Amino acid sequence: MSQKTHIARTDPFRWEGVPVLAYKEDPGSHFKSISRQVLFDDGKHFGAQLRYFEIAPGGHSTLERHDHAHSVMVIRGAGRALVGSEILDLRTHDLVRVPPQAWHQFRATGDEPLGFLCLVRSERDKPRMPTPEDLREMGSDGNVGAFIRT
Amino acid sequence: MSQKTHIARTDPFRWEGVPVLAYKEDPGSHFKSISRQVLFDDGKHFGAQLRYFEIAPGGHSTLERHDHAHSVMVIRGAGRALVGSEILDLRTHDLVRVPPQAWHQFRATGDEPLGFLCLVRSERDKPRMPTPEDLREMGSDGNVGAFIRT
Repeated sequence: MSQKTHIARTDPFRWEGVPVLAYKEDPGSHFKSISRQVLFDDGKHFGAQLRYFEIAPGGHSTLERHDHAHSVMVIRGAGRALVGSEILDLRTHDLVRVPPQAWHQFRATGDEPLGFLCLVRSERDKPRMPTPEDLREMGSDGNVGAFIRT
Repeated sequence: MSQKTHIARTDPFRWEGVPVLAYKEDPGSHFKSISRQVLFDDGKHFGAQLRYFEIAPGGHSTLERHDHAHSVMVIRGAGRALVGSEILDLRTHDLVRVPPQAWHQFRATGDEPLGFLCLVRSERDKPRMPTPEDLREMGSDGNVGAFIRT
């Protein structure tokens, strides 16, 4: 992770010396068309990481939950998100807070990628994917059932 | 501080229920045409705050330094910044890391405001303003001397 003073934007939503990574390294999670860039990772000073995720049109993030919270700002495009039992319509510069243990999934709904900053604790628990029983329970809310992708 | 799930952007670079605050509450610091909005303040989960600062054209932040680091992303307009002895030209989406004890000051140089996110630790030390001796020392670098506003 670069600790340079100035990290210039290069292409739109790409940064000098910041690698474009796979969204997840773990097998077995369901996601589509998504990349990850770690912009700030300064555990010593913040105990927090700032990442930029980008979901291509039609793509989605993993449906998951965990003990750690996410603080999100959309900085590119538009999309929708499930957070708990709420489905949110998101546009550029909207803020989203994902509380601990809330099921969540982001989708890019426009012609442009959905890009968002996501602030997390450096030390955090692993996400948990839904069991068949979790999915049945989520599906009992028709709006949620129609929204989720697994 | 709102802990709502979704904080929609209202006007450009303004958010639902997020007050637009004075940049500093302390007297005696020199700054011009700048506002502050606290977007995420979730000490329990992050130990970090994400703030949005906006400097009107021609304005500048306080020239200061402190033990805590700043992680910055420009999200509106363009500007210049002093960080340590470097003067940076900044455009939208550039990243800046201000290391501990580096003198720093941001200026809006375009026709549009310079708006940036700034990530800091929730628990942090107070900024220190330059003494006349600090200013003389900074001024011995002609570029820095010409840049700073006090």
